[in-house]
Amino acid sequence: MKKIAILGSTGSIGLTSLKVVEAHPEEYQVIALVAGKNLDLLEKQIRKFHPKGAALLEPDLAEELKCRLGRNSGTEIYSGHEGVNRLAAMEEVDTVISAMAGASGLIPTFAAIQAGKDIALANKETIVMAGPLVMDEGRKRGVSIIPIDSEHSAILQSLQGHQKEDLRRVILTASGGPFLDLPYEEMKRVSPEQALRHPNWNMGPKVTIDSATLMNKGLETIEALWLFDLKIEQISVIIHPQSIIHSMVEYKDGSIIAQLGIPDMLTPISYALSYPQHLGTPLPFLNLEEIGSLSFRKPDPKKFRCLDLARSAAETGGSMPAVLNGANEIAVDLFLKRKMDFFRIPDVIERTMGAHKTFRIDGIESVMEADRWARQKAMAFI
Amino acid sequence: MKKIAILGSTGSIGLTSLKVVEAHPEEYQVIALVAGKNLDLLEKQIRKFHPKGAALLEPDLAEELKCRLGRNSGTEIYSGHEGVNRLAAMEEVDTVISAMAGASGLIPTFAAIQAGKDIALANKETIVMAGPLVMDEGRKRGVSIIPIDSEHSAILQSLQGHQKEDLRRVILTASGGPFLDLPYEEMKRVSPEQALRHPNWNMGPKVTIDSATLMNKGLETIEALWLFDLKIEQISVIIHPQSIIHSMVEYKDGSIIAQLGIPDMLTPISYALSYPQHLGTPLPFLNLEEIGSLSFRKPDPKKFRCLDLARSAAETGGSMPAVLNGANEIAVDLFLKRKMDFFRIPDVIERTMGAHKTFRIDGIESVMEADRWARQKAMAFI
Repeated sequence: MKKIAILGSTGSIGLTSLKVVEAHPEEYQVIALVAGKNLDLLEKQIRKFHPKGAALLEPDLAEELKCRLGRNSGTEIYSGHEGVNRLAAMEEVDTVISAMAGASGLIPTFAAIQAGKDIALANKETIVMAGPLVMDEGRKRGVSIIPIDSEHSAILQSLQGHQKEDLRRVILTASGGPFLDLPYEEMKRVSPEQALRHPNWNMGPKVTIDSATLMNKGLETIEALWLFDLKIEQISVIIHPQSIIHSMVEYKDGSIIAQLGIPDMLTPISYALSYPQHLGTPLPFLNLEEIGSLSFRKPDPKKFRCLDLARSAAETGGSMPAVLNGANEIAVDLFLKRKMDFFRIPDVIERTMGAHKTFRIDGIESVMEADRWARQKAMAFI
Repeated sequence: MKKIAILGSTGSIGLTSLKVVEAHPEEYQVIALVAGKNLDLLEKQIRKFHPKGAALLEPDLAEELKCRLGRNSGTEIYSGHEGVNRLAAMEEVDTVISAMAGASGLIPTFAAIQAGKDIALANKETIVMAGPLVMDEGRKRGVSIIPIDSEHSAILQSLQGHQKEDLRRVILTASGGPFLDLPYEEMKRVSPEQALRHPNWNMGPKVTIDSATLMNKGLETIEALWLFDLKIEQISVIIHPQSIIHSMVEYKDGSIIAQLGIPDMLTPISYALSYPQHLGTPLPFLNLEEIGSLSFRKPDPKKFRCLDLARSAAETGGSMPAVLNGANEIAVDLFLKRKMDFFRIPDVIERTMGAHKTFRIDGIESVMEADRWARQKAMAFI
């Protein structure tokens, strides 16, 4: 029986994680649930899964939750960042699913690693902002950090049973998002509604916009770099509009091992929890005959500038990836609030990066400093 | 340094195996070379690789070879089946590449297994005719039997690091051969020249005709059954005309692991010799962007009847797979000699199978008996 804490239980990844748990009650038990401010949904989840602890980031909402549940619910309620960190490091927990959106997921994930918990990692920012720090801490504590991203799950699966020194490169697949075939000029006028219409994946708004700019693939490049201890030249990106091959690993003899499946986050979440096993899921199986054809092409660097910005941040290293990430979060947020054109997202990131003096990352505080600096600077540019 | 014997060194697989050896002289040494009757080529190979022993099936040719090489060549020359078996079991040898065409490869391969040699297996017939016998002997002697077929190499690679009990099914890919898009009626009139024009693979004539009838995929189904200890319901065949995905394994969670590469036998031969490592090869790497698209469809059972005949032989078991194989060898041979229409190949096999009273296989002699019976019966039907 694996005992699980879910950071971000009311988000898209959190909800799907709970489906995996429900499909295998003999394998998984929910010990802790953490949400930002979705009081109603968290209450429902607590009544269904009876965790030992739960937390909301907003203290007032946490108080309200306590009242609603009453004294004898059996679930201890916590609040704020301190409460979240406490649940992430709770003694009974074996595995923490890190699925809080954006930079706020980093600190509790780091706390969980320090407490020796295995991590099922959906929060890209943890690795993008603080890759070397997090991986070092993971090695020191002997914990597994298993990616939930479909791309990194595919890479992990394609590395099993093959030797790391035989690896030539990793090939990340990108759907290309909703604007793959839109002419360059027309990308200026796209609305948040258009950008949120992802052709294959059903995900949260931030990640969906990142798919439309291809920043998603840029962040995943940085993530792959640290998660699998690669060099930047060992990571390629290929456009594959059907999102059936989730990523690939090429070996020295030209053999490519790939992982395929229907585009549903339930599969990589399930694998992250059952790794290295494959447990059954309630999903239908892939039908390649019906899909008929899988296609591939090169990404257009002029249309999708975020890809090169991310590679450049990875090459610079230090605080730069955190700055890229912070500036991107601000830019995406303002685009979603209609305060900025889609087209300007890479501009804001590029100018923020251009103004940054890279410094060394020697702890979580320096990561947060880079993040704060980038957010302020990006806001100033808009 | 791995010490290698090649059974069938002058054939297509043998020649490619020698290229692998040449690419890694620090890894591989040729100890023995065996050919059927290609005296001139075997002589050249001996002068280049200086094996300790070599054999030709034809005794007269072996005598001629001895004369040509002279007394002090350092290579002992053997002849006939006895000579071949002796080299297959030679003390210095670690790994035997079993690449003699057809049923004649079975006996020396079995001798090599009995002598405790690891087997790199290109000779399908060994497993098709005598699967349970060969695999049992392999387990008893603690030897590895590593497939060289691109499909089974892909399956082996896709199984590495995943658990057998999590496997749902194996998906063999088939190019569909040169007649994939030919209307059913026109298949009656095809010539050996047309049938030998394989769209993707450069292989020997027997295997190429088997690709055109899809018997190749039928034999591979039987091979997969024994090599990977599967049930027949766990093996599917899918048409994939580009031959880029060489086969796949589907797991219980819907994840499919696949192996891709350019269609060149050098890759699976190299993997069979370096397993579980991937050593570099002189081949170019796969360029998916250039290929552009991979397609898939169901095989047409009416056009490619050999597929169902093979599944039915596998279900019957015992001597039936050897009968299927023997009848197919006769039918293909007569088609290549223009003594029979392409269209009649499955008829001859079906009638031979229909006339056979299945018996238990309890040793190599009973396998050879089934083979002889099938050949005589098939000849009688033509």
